[in-house]
Amino acid sequence: MKAEIISIGTEILLGQILNTNQQWLSLKLAELGIDVYYQSTVGDNPGRLARAITRGLNRSDIVITTGGLGPTVDDITLEAISRAFSKKLIYNKKIAAKISSHFGSQCLDMPSGNLRQAHIPEGAKILENHVGTAPGFIIEGGGKLLIALPGPPRELDPMFERYAMPYLRKKAGSDWVIKVRSVNITGLPESAVDRKVKDLLKSSPPVTVGIYAKPALIELKIIAKAKGEKAAKALMDRIDRKISARLKDRIFGRDNETLEGAVGKMLTAKHKTLAIAESCTGGLISSRITDIPGSSAYFRIGIAAYSNEAKISQLCVSPATISKYGAVSRQTALEMAKNVRQISGTDIGLSVTGIAGPGGGTKAKPVGLVYIALAMPKSVVWKEFHFRGGREMIKFRSSQAALDLLRGSL
Amino acid sequence: MKAEIISIGTEILLGQILNTNQQWLSLKLAELGIDVYYQSTVGDNPGRLARAITRGLNRSDIVITTGGLGPTVDDITLEAISRAFSKKLIYNKKIAAKISSHFGSQCLDMPSGNLRQAHIPEGAKILENHVGTAPGFIIEGGGKLLIALPGPPRELDPMFERYAMPYLRKKAGSDWVIKVRSVNITGLPESAVDRKVKDLLKSSPPVTVGIYAKPALIELKIIAKAKGEKAAKALMDRIDRKISARLKDRIFGRDNETLEGAVGKMLTAKHKTLAIAESCTGGLISSRITDIPGSSAYFRIGIAAYSNEAKISQLCVSPATISKYGAVSRQTALEMAKNVRQISGTDIGLSVTGIAGPGGGTKAKPVGLVYIALAMPKSVVWKEFHFRGGREMIKFRSSQAALDLLRGSL
Repeated sequence: MKAEIISIGTEILLGQILNTNQQWLSLKLAELGIDVYYQSTVGDNPGRLARAITRGLNRSDIVITTGGLGPTVDDITLEAISRAFSKKLIYNKKIAAKISSHFGSQCLDMPSGNLRQAHIPEGAKILENHVGTAPGFIIEGGGKLLIALPGPPRELDPMFERYAMPYLRKKAGSDWVIKVRSVNITGLPESAVDRKVKDLLKSSPPVTVGIYAKPALIELKIIAKAKGEKAAKALMDRIDRKISARLKDRIFGRDNETLEGAVGKMLTAKHKTLAIAESCTGGLISSRITDIPGSSAYFRIGIAAYSNEAKISQLCVSPATISKYGAVSRQTALEMAKNVRQISGTDIGLSVTGIAGPGGGTKAKPVGLVYIALAMPKSVVWKEFHFRGGREMIKFRSSQAALDLLRGSL
Repeated sequence: MKAEIISIGTEILLGQILNTNQQWLSLKLAELGIDVYYQSTVGDNPGRLARAITRGLNRSDIVITTGGLGPTVDDITLEAISRAFSKKLIYNKKIAAKISSHFGSQCLDMPSGNLRQAHIPEGAKILENHVGTAPGFIIEGGGKLLIALPGPPRELDPMFERYAMPYLRKKAGSDWVIKVRSVNITGLPESAVDRKVKDLLKSSPPVTVGIYAKPALIELKIIAKAKGEKAAKALMDRIDRKISARLKDRIFGRDNETLEGAVGKMLTAKHKTLAIAESCTGGLISSRITDIPGSSAYFRIGIAAYSNEAKISQLCVSPATISKYGAVSRQTALEMAKNVRQISGTDIGLSVTGIAGPGGGTKAKPVGLVYIALAMPKSVVWKEFHFRGGREMIKFRSSQAALDLLRGSL
């Protein structure tokens, strides 16, 4: 079954609100094994809305509308839908009573417009709204199915999960499911990952692979469609094994696992403790490390020594090192890592120093030059990077590279 | 002129990513006085993509596509667009050279797929990509205009603002403009802001006000439509003055101004220096402070003392204070702020200690309990907060409250 989602609301077209319903519904439909072919948004214009609904019913089996069911004068969804199915709008006393009592219970004056919401296309199945006043409904005809939902996520989400999903599951009449897994990769550009899995990216259903580039992170998304969870998982596992064999330790996790989460797991498992000395990242790495619940078990201290004086007084970096090699140098990075480890008595010391820009760069040391060092009980390592992008991007890429260096050492 | 936005990407239809480009572009088009009639999303399917582009060019004057320009095998946008305009795809040496040099500068092997991006429909105006490799372009024909943009917001946003907007402004040729200004408020719940500006929220065009709640931040958006920038600005200013008079110092900035940016400006203007001692926020406040270019002028050091030992050894918090009152207490927060100020020799010391959860809460000290303290040359202040939400939300709300306390003191 093919579905499409139509969001209704001029405020969305004006950019006044971010439409999160489409993503939310698409994920839910994927869970049901229903393919979404289109998402679209139209304003509160009767002609354009009616055409969008008619087009949707022509090309898709299921049309889901969101919004346009409110009490305001510009809601014209009900009329458009009833016309598309050639049904009359019927006044529903039960809904009217519920709306009245809702206003009663909140001691609010009920504007007469609210009773417009008590009209429902003839023969439609009503979906109760436990949060707001506008009910949703499901209407069928000519082999097509339309589900009308309210716009606010807090009303839409529970209504869809509680009433529409069981209906669709039954309707879909099968145990087809779509499962998605992402394999998270760092330390390689998109093109290099692409080359290693080029043949897999051409896989056709029931299992496909897509590549998505984010800053300092590449995701390979495996999408499997099968009868039942188990079969879908088996399909995904087969491709996942191929990806793993080719990308090896460049893979740091799956699905929502972050680099800081992966590092946290390894530190916990190996009972290692960590201290961080940051310059250009300004506390970002410490902040990411402490985003992970339970990080107090391995994270002791993060020192964001932004000024040279702070590097000298708090991290005991030698003034001679700074004056001879500069604050942004391999030598300073090494001292920062070694000293923060010693000061805090941890197993590992991690440091970053660099130029995040936009100012402060020179020909010899341009914006984006970053040194990362890692001090361990018996060894120290360092790496030099040249990152591109704005200040926040350079900060983020530096933090990503630092966490990846730490991961490699574990 | 009527515009529509077509987002391209199967990953959007699968719900794998939240499409923020549509909102962003809609706001920008509104600024230009261009009406958006449709937003839609199609997958990486040649037939459906081609039909969406053709339909768009039939019903709208301007079609903007986002995504589908990357170097991977599933990008079929270029072909679809060149076919819709009956143009050949031409290999552009200049773009190819730029792509090659991009890979050269990062010392990366360039996969041949990247050179696919060097093809552009004949006669198209190239929009440079200063962030990634895929250029965008503008193509015109038959009285219609299509702008093809890359998918990632960090590439799309600057390309559109720098190259496409001036082009469209000239093209639109009319002096109607829609201007949007947001007034940024913190430290008050949405309902309290709503109550103070209830009448303004009911304003009708040419100038309207909307209220948008984000975590620890409320935005009042003023939207004005007028002939010319000056007239629009005057309309906005009139409403802005009313909002300012009612919300006073709860307003920390306008448009994209962040709390860390506002604080940075004030620290710079007053020539004050800052040191930060963090516990539950784990470096987040330091990281936010250093997101601001030029922050090295006022920010000296941030110490994320996550363990009690680190609080004692690095921040000289008295062990007696911790054992008597606990690490999460007003007393510890005050010592942290006073000591970090003294250690670093700054004008101001800011500290945060609290319980970010999900573990670590007790009946007396539940998750979300946070103490913030501020030490200045002649005074110290502290505040107790009870924040709700998950770990990252509590960290963020704490950082927001800390920056707001600092702002208040300046």
